[in-house]
Amino acid sequence: MNISIFGPIHYSGSCLKNAAANNTYICKMKTVIIGSGNVAYHLCRAFSESGISLTQVFGRNEAALSAISTELKIPYSVTEPADADLYIIAVSDTSVAEVSAQIKKNDCIVAHTSGSLPKEILQGDYRRASFYPLQTFSKDKPLDYSSVPIFVEAEHAADLETLTSLAERISGRVSAADFETRKYMHITAVFACNFVNHLFARAKEIADSRQIPFAYFEPLIDETVEKIKTLEPKTAQTGPAVRNDERVLNLHREILTGEHLKIYNVMNESIKKMYEL
Amino acid sequence: MNISIFGPIHYSGSCLKNAAANNTYICKMKTVIIGSGNVAYHLCRAFSESGISLTQVFGRNEAALSAISTELKIPYSVTEPADADLYIIAVSDTSVAEVSAQIKKNDCIVAHTSGSLPKEILQGDYRRASFYPLQTFSKDKPLDYSSVPIFVEAEHAADLETLTSLAERISGRVSAADFETRKYMHITAVFACNFVNHLFARAKEIADSRQIPFAYFEPLIDETVEKIKTLEPKTAQTGPAVRNDERVLNLHREILTGEHLKIYNVMNESIKKMYEL
Repeated sequence: MNISIFGPIHYSGSCLKNAAANNTYICKMKTVIIGSGNVAYHLCRAFSESGISLTQVFGRNEAALSAISTELKIPYSVTEPADADLYIIAVSDTSVAEVSAQIKKNDCIVAHTSGSLPKEILQGDYRRASFYPLQTFSKDKPLDYSSVPIFVEAEHAADLETLTSLAERISGRVSAADFETRKYMHITAVFACNFVNHLFARAKEIADSRQIPFAYFEPLIDETVEKIKTLEPKTAQTGPAVRNDERVLNLHREILTGEHLKIYNVMNESIKKMYEL
Repeated sequence: MNISIFGPIHYSGSCLKNAAANNTYICKMKTVIIGSGNVAYHLCRAFSESGISLTQVFGRNEAALSAISTELKIPYSVTEPADADLYIIAVSDTSVAEVSAQIKKNDCIVAHTSGSLPKEILQGDYRRASFYPLQTFSKDKPLDYSSVPIFVEAEHAADLETLTSLAERISGRVSAADFETRKYMHITAVFACNFVNHLFARAKEIADSRQIPFAYFEPLIDETVEKIKTLEPKTAQTGPAVRNDERVLNLHREILTGEHLKIYNVMNESIKKMYEL
């Protein structure tokens, strides 16, 4: 870790001199995860698997908290967040402000996990921060956190260092990123992940309509993703739109209806614009 | 291979009695690939690597043919297709009819490789067929053909068997599929591959606009694809649209312009319709 300490040091009782001391501090630091959804669950799991014992997982959904608690041996509460040095809020964007106001302690770091919120959303006199894991989380799908990029931001340099050290315990790809950068990362992720998944869902509907097993398309999907690791996506484009093949485009337009047709048209227009066809 | 022979047998001089005989025939059969683009190149390569010697690669682009010929040790011609038992036409859809008319021989199979053309497009008195590899082909990217699904169709059962045997020499996933099925496969592939790649290209533009390395998104993209191998794409959906998070959607709409905004709106509307939001 190469972040120099140039801001005030706020750790209660700790004296942060160097990375080693910081690492020791990370292990002693009391951390509470707030939330019981996919992001909270995978964070709890990643910390547990990295030997970082969490003080508590706190939230409203007792069934979900109880399940996390039982699986990962972390105390939970639905009534009050435990005393801690760091609170990581992993709830839906709309609840972050309200949840953050429940933390009455001042001498602590509070970080949210959203790509689309500034740290200023946090309502309290504590030191505000952000801890943004760039990944798609589904509860039913195990996840290797070590390759998940994590972006950290803090009001104070020492806190940035603490969050960086902590993030580096679970991931090999940790960087600092401000709100403006996070916002663009999030939009990029929406295109490269959320919309891509929706295309898979719509593609599957089309295949299902003719009883074509969607598994046939797995090698194609794998190759589509493998390709862009060695070629620019713009260079890797194939298909009727980039060939300007009006016959095929019309053939497809005759078959498609509803949302399929709307997506078909807007994507093809966008492809044609990109390649000036 | 489990396709029974119930049609007339047309092989000149050969007597096809069973799969073993057929396999021997495959090795002796004279095959010409027509075309010099990505599909032609990867087919030539897959056949060569599977020990099937091709009689010729035929086309118009001498530079491309010469390169294929040199790399894979296959004779080439730009003037006349060699005498053969099977011609596989791997040219752009718009050229298939014209190219197919150049084959004057009758006692042979002629197959095109298009997902969007019926075998009836082929202009000649030979036995018409189709040999459709479901994959995205880029010349600069090596490809493992063994997992590429290949769909075959023929006027005669014996030819279907021959094409199936041949396809099975290069791929472990060979099925019969008529034009109607191929058409839907192709549209599915356009959504699951061509449009997905275009989303990557547009996503990269957004990341580039803020100097965010696109490599940050690789784990996210990998996970998006891995997820749908164990979850239905519809179940795996994440992101602001499926959460009906209007604040984030508006935040993004304020930033995006042009094609990015058009794609953003149509995809989110489609997601909301799918989940009845």
